[in-house]
Amino acid sequence: MSDRTPPPTTRHLLVRGCDVLRVPVTGECDVLPAQDIVVADGVIVDVRPTGADRPAERGAEVVDGRGLLALPGLVNAHTHSPMVLMRGAAEDVTVEGWFNDRVWPMESNLTAEDVRAGARLACAEMIRSGVTTFADHYFFPEEIAAAVAETGLRADLAPTYFSSGGRRALDATVAFAEAWHGGADGRVTVSLGPHAPYTVDDKDLRTLSDHARRLGVRMHIHAAEHLEQTESSLERRGITPVRVLHETGVLDAGALIAHGCGIVEEDLPLLGEYAGTTAVACCPKVYLKHALSPLTPVRELLAAGVTVAVGTDGAAGHNTLDVWEALRLVALTQKQAVRDATWMTVSDTLRLAVRGGARALGLQDRIGALEPGMRADIVLTDLSGPHCRPLHDPRAALVYSARASDVRTVVVDGRVLMRDGRLLTVDEPALLAEADARVARVLDTSHGKAVQHYDP
Amino acid sequence: MSDRTPPPTTRHLLVRGCDVLRVPVTGECDVLPAQDIVVADGVIVDVRPTGADRPAERGAEVVDGRGLLALPGLVNAHTHSPMVLMRGAAEDVTVEGWFNDRVWPMESNLTAEDVRAGARLACAEMIRSGVTTFADHYFFPEEIAAAVAETGLRADLAPTYFSSGGRRALDATVAFAEAWHGGADGRVTVSLGPHAPYTVDDKDLRTLSDHARRLGVRMHIHAAEHLEQTESSLERRGITPVRVLHETGVLDAGALIAHGCGIVEEDLPLLGEYAGTTAVACCPKVYLKHALSPLTPVRELLAAGVTVAVGTDGAAGHNTLDVWEALRLVALTQKQAVRDATWMTVSDTLRLAVRGGARALGLQDRIGALEPGMRADIVLTDLSGPHCRPLHDPRAALVYSARASDVRTVVVDGRVLMRDGRLLTVDEPALLAEADARVARVLDTSHGKAVQHYDP
Repeated sequence: MSDRTPPPTTRHLLVRGCDVLRVPVTGECDVLPAQDIVVADGVIVDVRPTGADRPAERGAEVVDGRGLLALPGLVNAHTHSPMVLMRGAAEDVTVEGWFNDRVWPMESNLTAEDVRAGARLACAEMIRSGVTTFADHYFFPEEIAAAVAETGLRADLAPTYFSSGGRRALDATVAFAEAWHGGADGRVTVSLGPHAPYTVDDKDLRTLSDHARRLGVRMHIHAAEHLEQTESSLERRGITPVRVLHETGVLDAGALIAHGCGIVEEDLPLLGEYAGTTAVACCPKVYLKHALSPLTPVRELLAAGVTVAVGTDGAAGHNTLDVWEALRLVALTQKQAVRDATWMTVSDTLRLAVRGGARALGLQDRIGALEPGMRADIVLTDLSGPHCRPLHDPRAALVYSARASDVRTVVVDGRVLMRDGRLLTVDEPALLAEADARVARVLDTSHGKAVQHYDP
Repeated sequence: MSDRTPPPTTRHLLVRGCDVLRVPVTGECDVLPAQDIVVADGVIVDVRPTGADRPAERGAEVVDGRGLLALPGLVNAHTHSPMVLMRGAAEDVTVEGWFNDRVWPMESNLTAEDVRAGARLACAEMIRSGVTTFADHYFFPEEIAAAVAETGLRADLAPTYFSSGGRRALDATVAFAEAWHGGADGRVTVSLGPHAPYTVDDKDLRTLSDHARRLGVRMHIHAAEHLEQTESSLERRGITPVRVLHETGVLDAGALIAHGCGIVEEDLPLLGEYAGTTAVACCPKVYLKHALSPLTPVRELLAAGVTVAVGTDGAAGHNTLDVWEALRLVALTQKQAVRDATWMTVSDTLRLAVRGGARALGLQDRIGALEPGMRADIVLTDLSGPHCRPLHDPRAALVYSARASDVRTVVVDGRVLMRDGRLLTVDEPALLAEADARVARVLDTSHGKAVQHYDP
């Protein structure tokens, strides 16, 4: 019989027999046991109890999901992926020392080839960790876009812009958006990326906001990274960084704000006005490491209707691009920050990491849930290791026990990027060797140059 | 030639060609490249640049350490290992709810066989994570001792004692110490384990302290777990929990204090008097999860000369027994707690996790460093994964990038317990199945009983 079945006209993928994590928009997550996820042309068309193939699905690529838990791909809502080249090269320093003595001098060494190598290494690490989408903010964005296109990940890419770069840099930023937004079969979207209100002047913020509205893209910007920045802004110009974003049209264009630990009470009504298109990426590992307090006011932001998502920031601070670490720390630090152990529950934490991330990138109609109509970004995790057992509650295991190394298989847009721990779109040894060969030059700061000086 | 060499009279192990992490008592850690670690009868006899065997070492068991970093086995300085059975079964609850509605009712279900199964599962998890020594505090300690003897780990075991248990329980505690201190070829030591000053009366604390001095063992006790406990003690009886430990002879006997987040300024001179034999185990994941603030005052304790070590606490709170997670959180939370990013450096953090742990258990002459004369507790880690690369600084990678899953080979007392990811002393599938079979009964709290009521 099957011989007579015509070959499928669509590209089918069938993930067989996995448990499926459901992350609703509100309320508790749950797990559907023993499901088949049916994918056609990159889109989930069915999630149903496991059973026989249907005729149209014969010939589909099959992934054996038995014994594994499928979850929506994790979203890294704020990173600087090529900074993996500087992993571990700026430890135990103040924020000022981190910028002025380490990172910004190192970044003045970067070439397009360095960024390409760093971005590809970052993609390999993220695929291995079950991160299927990332929001990047960096230099040489064409190289990052090429890495995303090649490795099969999904990303929103913001070219980092400083006003010191002048007109040419601003034009390049806009040209990148025009060239790449919707690229790589729709897996690449672009945001405009003014670095921060303290490195980009109001005129440029206005110009970029206008471009964003014209192009239908969003803004991705560091703002109110910590309370001292907010205080400094108030002192220097009488308004908070968030109000600067409002006055320059950044919020109106739709903004992904990185960090926001310095968001203060008077900012909340303003953010609330733009709640539908505003998000804040919380990256707690770097806040702790840089000894910052307070942290992102997640409870207040959610109460104001603002989207909150989970990020790692770059690996020069976070050391990994591991969203498992980041989401666990969001749960732990937020409970402590508001002195309420019953808050930021397991379900809420998982929701931030997938649906929150999707919304933060303006991709909520495409990703963030394993439901028919969504793009097929699927992570299969193995919770059978002793550190997860007995497995009373798989949701708790995901937040508090599981590790990136429990990720077995990763699918993005219906394409298998890692199968049973083997990367299919990356030549990992070659990539690691290339990264290693570049780092001595990248780390050399003897020249005394820097891309910027930090004095917010 | 080698045929004529007489068979070795001692049990030799040779770890070949590994890099070796040196953790000095003060100052920076460093890494010796390409070393051989020579072990005879469980003791490290040489650490030297890799090369040919010497005659006496021919016939030694060889572990290929090339490309791996050897570090002293991690010490989990405070846990309740059998609580892995309750992993993930008490999420998003207050401290009171955790004790009174979940954990203490569940613990009233425990049988000796449950504890045996839980302890063995915990040992498997710890071996996989590179934890070679743990300080345990729990019921049915004979079962835990048997698990330690069988799996080859090293442990200091404290039988949990509540005054509500009465004379019989107290006698059993002392009998356990007499039977097991120095057991399993010296790998098991015993501490006496009054639960806390709020569950054990002063008379019993005095009696146990006297026994500890007589037996030459230490005390392991929860005290000043958080600030509210200290405030409650001051209100109820006019002195802090630490002063209770002083007045009842606990500090004089030598104490490992679990948590100590509620240690206040007036306690420091008192702890300083006993600094040589006092330690505090810091388990930050559970403090964050239970929304506690302040955290263990690590800086003040170290300044007073008190030993600080890293623990996980039980998996009903910590979810894992992963000391990598715990040591990373010590670094991160301590930097934030004192608002100093330059403090709790990578070297200091590693020191707490190995030398601190060794001292906390009174084992500083046996473990905590890879040096001639020390027992051979060696963990070989693989830092070649993309999440650790480029590897600028292996010390930073250990604290901020590495994961338990990067542990490849584990040696305790010169015996290989895990080789290249394969457990040699544990039948893992059988053990997981047994644990799974027990949990429905352990989790059932419909009976309304509890081992204690929490009201400190």
